[in-house]
Amino acid sequence: MIQDIIRKTRTVRKFQGEIKISQEILLDLVDLARLGGSARNRQPLCYMLITASEQCEEIFPLLGWAGYLSDWPGPEAGERPVAYILCLLDTKRCEEPENEVYIDLGIASQNILLGAAERGIFGCRIGAFSKDAIGRSLDLENRYKPLLVLALGYPAEEVVLEEMEHDGDIRYWRDGDGVHHVPKRRLSEIVLVPGS
Amino acid sequence: MIQDIIRKTRTVRKFQGEIKISQEILLDLVDLARLGGSARNRQPLCYMLITASEQCEEIFPLLGWAGYLSDWPGPEAGERPVAYILCLLDTKRCEEPENEVYIDLGIASQNILLGAAERGIFGCRIGAFSKDAIGRSLDLENRYKPLLVLALGYPAEEVVLEEMEHDGDIRYWRDGDGVHHVPKRRLSEIVLVPGS
Repeated sequence: MIQDIIRKTRTVRKFQGEIKISQEILLDLVDLARLGGSARNRQPLCYMLITASEQCEEIFPLLGWAGYLSDWPGPEAGERPVAYILCLLDTKRCEEPENEVYIDLGIASQNILLGAAERGIFGCRIGAFSKDAIGRSLDLENRYKPLLVLALGYPAEEVVLEEMEHDGDIRYWRDGDGVHHVPKRRLSEIVLVPGS
Repeated sequence: MIQDIIRKTRTVRKFQGEIKISQEILLDLVDLARLGGSARNRQPLCYMLITASEQCEEIFPLLGWAGYLSDWPGPEAGERPVAYILCLLDTKRCEEPENEVYIDLGIASQNILLGAAERGIFGCRIGAFSKDAIGRSLDLENRYKPLLVLALGYPAEEVVLEEMEHDGDIRYWRDGDGVHHVPKRRLSEIVLVPGS
């Protein structure tokens, strides 16, 4: 059931640093992104696949991690992502990152993360990074605009969903055992009845 | 395999108008949207579920259909969507529809359409509609901003993916038998090699 894999596909920020991910697996995942729908069928997104250790090490310090865990600067050495998929806008295929491009990006990244979860690989969408620094680090042509980084690896933390109270606190938290808890709004809080 | 359901999840614009979809099924689909990730865990999206025939008839003329099929004004009576999920931004949970909200919308709508495809239900993301007219038609509070309409039903057309030539024509087309063809960029056209 798709529900099981959707439920399983959680954001993970600590990884088993010693288990690498091959370019072949990343290609399979990007193929899932490719098969997603795209507004006006423009398909303006491109993907750079990063698996080499030295490149992963160069990218890591450019990324912002887990805004709500203010005392946690990000995963330690040995728990860092072992691969990245950098999602880019190809401005020759669509000049501006319009709203529709971000919808495409949500679709594409969800397909990637669902396919990853099926293989036991998890990840984190990171939008907080210096576009210029990433561009310089990867020698990106001006044609490509970095939009999102997917940090990937085999998980080294447990993530649990919690039911949120009525418009309660949205901040995730880690408990004393390092388990990461994510409050989710209830179905009744997000469904509107017409005419009500 | 997730790949099979992702491949199967195609945009459909002609439906079997006599087979209805229940509110229960739509609630199950919105629950899949609920389980998707959300930037900063804000979960700012809400969903209005529309299954009543008279409401579907009211909404239908407000929607824009298939931009590239210029001689096709949209599905005829009997082939129209039997249900809609209207995706809204709850401005009390996030004031502005920022880029991150559209990423959330891509994730949520993809989860909905994957879950729908598993049940044999297909749909179309429609962004081309009058926000004001939809708001009036559904008596929406100002608090809620319509972002996207998902038109749903059991399919009455076949959709086929085609391999696109190098930066070729992105326009989908219908052949003489009414089969809908969608050109997709090849994997090699969307993957960049670092440093190349």
